[in-house]
Amino acid sequence: MNFTKNPKNLIYGKHPIMEALEAGKAFDKLFIQTSTKSESLREIKQLALEMGIIVQGVPFEKLKRLTNASHQGIAGYLSLIQYYKVEDILSQAYEKGEIPLFLVLDGIQDVRNFGAIVRTASCFGVHAIIVPKYGAAPVSADAIKASAGALATFPICRVNDLKESLHYLKENGLSVAATSITKSNDIGNCDFNVPLAVVLGSEEKGVQRDILRVADFEINIEHQQHFNSLNVSVANGIIMYEVGRQRKIE
Amino acid sequence: MNFTKNPKNLIYGKHPIMEALEAGKAFDKLFIQTSTKSESLREIKQLALEMGIIVQGVPFEKLKRLTNASHQGIAGYLSLIQYYKVEDILSQAYEKGEIPLFLVLDGIQDVRNFGAIVRTASCFGVHAIIVPKYGAAPVSADAIKASAGALATFPICRVNDLKESLHYLKENGLSVAATSITKSNDIGNCDFNVPLAVVLGSEEKGVQRDILRVADFEINIEHQQHFNSLNVSVANGIIMYEVGRQRKIE
Repeated sequence: MNFTKNPKNLIYGKHPIMEALEAGKAFDKLFIQTSTKSESLREIKQLALEMGIIVQGVPFEKLKRLTNASHQGIAGYLSLIQYYKVEDILSQAYEKGEIPLFLVLDGIQDVRNFGAIVRTASCFGVHAIIVPKYGAAPVSADAIKASAGALATFPICRVNDLKESLHYLKENGLSVAATSITKSNDIGNCDFNVPLAVVLGSEEKGVQRDILRVADFEINIEHQQHFNSLNVSVANGIIMYEVGRQRKIE
Repeated sequence: MNFTKNPKNLIYGKHPIMEALEAGKAFDKLFIQTSTKSESLREIKQLALEMGIIVQGVPFEKLKRLTNASHQGIAGYLSLIQYYKVEDILSQAYEKGEIPLFLVLDGIQDVRNFGAIVRTASCFGVHAIIVPKYGAAPVSADAIKASAGALATFPICRVNDLKESLHYLKENGLSVAATSITKSNDIGNCDFNVPLAVVLGSEEKGVQRDILRVADFEINIEHQQHFNSLNVSVANGIIMYEVGRQRKIE
């Protein structure tokens, strides 16, 4: 069962939704009636988009299927988790005197891999995981289970544009390392004892080209059998271990 | 779908089963009629047990449900994979001049974790994985999928008694390292550049006590957040990486 579609989490009506947004609560998606010219709905849409929430225009019938109550042209399911801002997490890390470590997930849609990555990240002191608004694995009950519960509290940042966030991190002192299978830059030869963002790509497609271009360097895990590859959550565990190992030694 | 219960893999009748066993083919399980005094069935049972196959006594009706043909009191599903002998794999590794590396799975019953462990093992040049006859994850189609196909060809040794196999490996020059959460012996401080067997326990129960007693030392992956733990297939990836790293350097 996907709790994100739990009727208990459904909010509808202009005021309840505006209040939730202003209180910083996140929605997985907001449904807004297409045939409306309401000014307040336009405002809500604008605010939601700025918060990284997906807004979908739907016909009146779709909203009616979600609720029989008076929805005023808008409804949405509250997220299972709270999302964080990259800026906040980064300044907190610097304030604590810690070396920032961010994970960026590009195209990882498998719920179990997503959960396993969050679980590992929580073990190795990653400050936050950045996911894109579109094309990310859903924060579902299955993902929370696969994370052994870590996902319920671990800082996830949902952003409109991964590239923009990576540029922001670079401007604020982080090196960006992207996993790659073509160029081999063995993680054992990289310097991870610096403020760092690691970008993981999907097993099928790898990291997207335009995101690779933003990266400072590409990394790879050398292993013996090149006809087979590592699962992405296992690869993540090895990279996080290597980062921790280097930071402990130096 | 679990191919191990595919009717196409069902073999029945004394001669077909005896021939399959003598040709070294493995069964996941053999069903033998309990109410029989047949001498040849006793012989088959003996041979099957020596080969590490589970033999289950069943009533006539159970066999009749499996097949309408003349089963002569015995039937079984052929394994999806061929099993290997620990002795053979070990001597091959020594003959090739390689430093033996075995993985031993104690109580790992989750099919996806099992598959992921095999996938990682195939990447890092593990010589074989040893699993117990009872209490291991089934070699199912799901396990093969989770292994990205590696399980179909990777050497798996199915043994009657894990302790016995570990004693055999120790007598033949291997050190036995068992994962443990209680005693912390960080993998970064261990010497893995020796003939080695790594025992992984289940996430719930860890490695069994009587197997821990056979181990030469206990290992652990240090990480920051002790309230959460690593997934067993991620932990395996990190240990295999550390073994490879040490062997590459020295």
